[in-house]
Amino acid sequence: MVPIAPSIPEPIVRENVARLADLLRAQDIAACVVFDASNMLAFAGTPHASWDRLTCAAVTRDGQVVLVCPAFERPAVAGAENIAAVTTWREEEDPFAVFVRALGEAGVRSGRVAVDGRIWLRAWDALRAASRELKFVRGEDLIREVRICKSPAAQQILREASRRGEELFRVLAGWIEPGVREIDLHQRLQAHFAEKGLAVDPMIQSGPNGAIPHNPTGQRELRDGDNVVVDSVITHDGFNNDLTRTYAVGTPTEKARTAYRVVREAHDAAIAAAAPGVECRELDRIARRIIEQAGFGEFFTHRLGHGMGIECHEPPYLNGANTEKLREGMCVTIEPGIYVPGSIVTHM
Amino acid sequence: MVPIAPSIPEPIVRENVARLADLLRAQDIAACVVFDASNMLAFAGTPHASWDRLTCAAVTRDGQVVLVCPAFERPAVAGAENIAAVTTWREEEDPFAVFVRALGEAGVRSGRVAVDGRIWLRAWDALRAASRELKFVRGEDLIREVRICKSPAAQQILREASRRGEELFRVLAGWIEPGVREIDLHQRLQAHFAEKGLAVDPMIQSGPNGAIPHNPTGQRELRDGDNVVVDSVITHDGFNNDLTRTYAVGTPTEKARTAYRVVREAHDAAIAAAAPGVECRELDRIARRIIEQAGFGEFFTHRLGHGMGIECHEPPYLNGANTEKLREGMCVTIEPGIYVPGSIVTHM
Repeated sequence: MVPIAPSIPEPIVRENVARLADLLRAQDIAACVVFDASNMLAFAGTPHASWDRLTCAAVTRDGQVVLVCPAFERPAVAGAENIAAVTTWREEEDPFAVFVRALGEAGVRSGRVAVDGRIWLRAWDALRAASRELKFVRGEDLIREVRICKSPAAQQILREASRRGEELFRVLAGWIEPGVREIDLHQRLQAHFAEKGLAVDPMIQSGPNGAIPHNPTGQRELRDGDNVVVDSVITHDGFNNDLTRTYAVGTPTEKARTAYRVVREAHDAAIAAAAPGVECRELDRIARRIIEQAGFGEFFTHRLGHGMGIECHEPPYLNGANTEKLREGMCVTIEPGIYVPGSIVTHM
Repeated sequence: MVPIAPSIPEPIVRENVARLADLLRAQDIAACVVFDASNMLAFAGTPHASWDRLTCAAVTRDGQVVLVCPAFERPAVAGAENIAAVTTWREEEDPFAVFVRALGEAGVRSGRVAVDGRIWLRAWDALRAASRELKFVRGEDLIREVRICKSPAAQQILREASRRGEELFRVLAGWIEPGVREIDLHQRLQAHFAEKGLAVDPMIQSGPNGAIPHNPTGQRELRDGDNVVVDSVITHDGFNNDLTRTYAVGTPTEKARTAYRVVREAHDAAIAAAAPGVECRELDRIARRIIEQAGFGEFFTHRLGHGMGIECHEPPYLNGANTEKLREGMCVTIEPGIYVPGSIVTHM
């Protein structure tokens, strides 16, 4: 799991708030509560979220942002005050009552209030117990709708992250050779990018390790004939781009060459088919059919891809069941893979 | 936020499961769903929890543990199979339907199923939609009841963590001097303990920085007359001990001496009063009264303490409102503090 970044550009937060407020007015909802760290960052400009003490926010239909946090942790949300009116609660107070009062002061005293789908069940219960006037309803779809299509500014950030990722892969290409350990490559990449002030943390998986998606970088030495799969999230201005490449150590086997070619073909075909109006499942099917026809179907064990943004995995999901249609502004990964346990792996 | 450790001793997990099953039978509940990473570790033996894909578990009334995770992430829960029966779901399946089927295979086909209070609201909705036979109810109190009192084995682990923490504070005492930066002390401590195979990550806050609880370690140089507050979580066998000490650089001012003495007195008085049957708020009051009477009341800005265990903050909370009574086996911090902004700080 990639942690949520400390900030995103303020104009993007303001645009998110404005878009959410538009949706609230259109649906006659008084406000929307955000709870998850990613939603706090998207709409309140801080990733500070509830740990054991309540920290959450709400966007009102007129575009105000109300944030509550513990009094003694007030400095932790420094910066959020550019976006939000901050109300604090003392240790012996009911934080949900304080939050409801803060909503009232922002003019939200009755009507429907939508709530983040990732709020904890117990916090949902406490919120409902704290007000008889407000009717709390599900807000998952509203928040999703704002975040799923990226503005031109956010798209530009993701493109810049991609450019940096390409540099990582280019640099790494010169270091792949028999005898070097996964962890050595990881450390050299970290040192290389630290000089430029960039933190990178790629997963580097060689030989059989590559067949375990999301396996951490380990001690294994690269050997001639290995494939090396490198999966890296590049975070830039709070947005996450998720990139993967496969390298061959020495001379790849014939089967590895075939697998690489098939994955490449599936990858290119899905990208060529991606356009507004196309169902997410259709892209998954296009890529999967190519891999199946080449006889590797059982080894493509995960969905084709996923959205990326403040979270490195977010909607829309490109899996075989999702009938959602692609829209202008959605940013997704297209990452087919072939994972033959103990043997060849190709992922891009 | 301190991450959840990768494991805790298996006998402790087994005991947690047995205690939860006892409660389920006593209340005629068929099973209890665990969702949060800390509860996954406590009851299924793995901290692997839902990110964007469902990974959760349930304990049945006869003490079986049922775990579901994505098929391609099956290796991530390796180890959990000693405790749990693992069922996987494929990308195009409804994971909640798969979970309900797995519960059925474990004999849970009707009746009440309690659910973790930290489940996401949207996952709660999806769970309820996945079964007409099961009646999902709140399970917060059941899980809390098992985790709030530590077994002798868990207490022993917390004591060992404390012993290591004392060593950290002793080593650090020799390095506190004017001119050294907070970050230098942090790096020396990390290097010192890395040689012993231990990871430490103390927050080191000097002078005015100490007045911001949970402020990260920074670049500031220590100066003569500073107080330095060091707050460190020491993790051992998956349990977290949370310790704080205050150091003086050079000669402390008279006011700093007084504050230290007052905090020490509050600390000792609360510890002396801690016993089964005493209300949590009573300990907070005892410590707070001493600090108030010394004229520092407004500068003791947080609760007296909190429980510790798999999470470094967990129930019971020692705040001014909690009427819960202490019980045998509860492990709590007693950590009064005086934070005068821009000036002296004492926390222990």
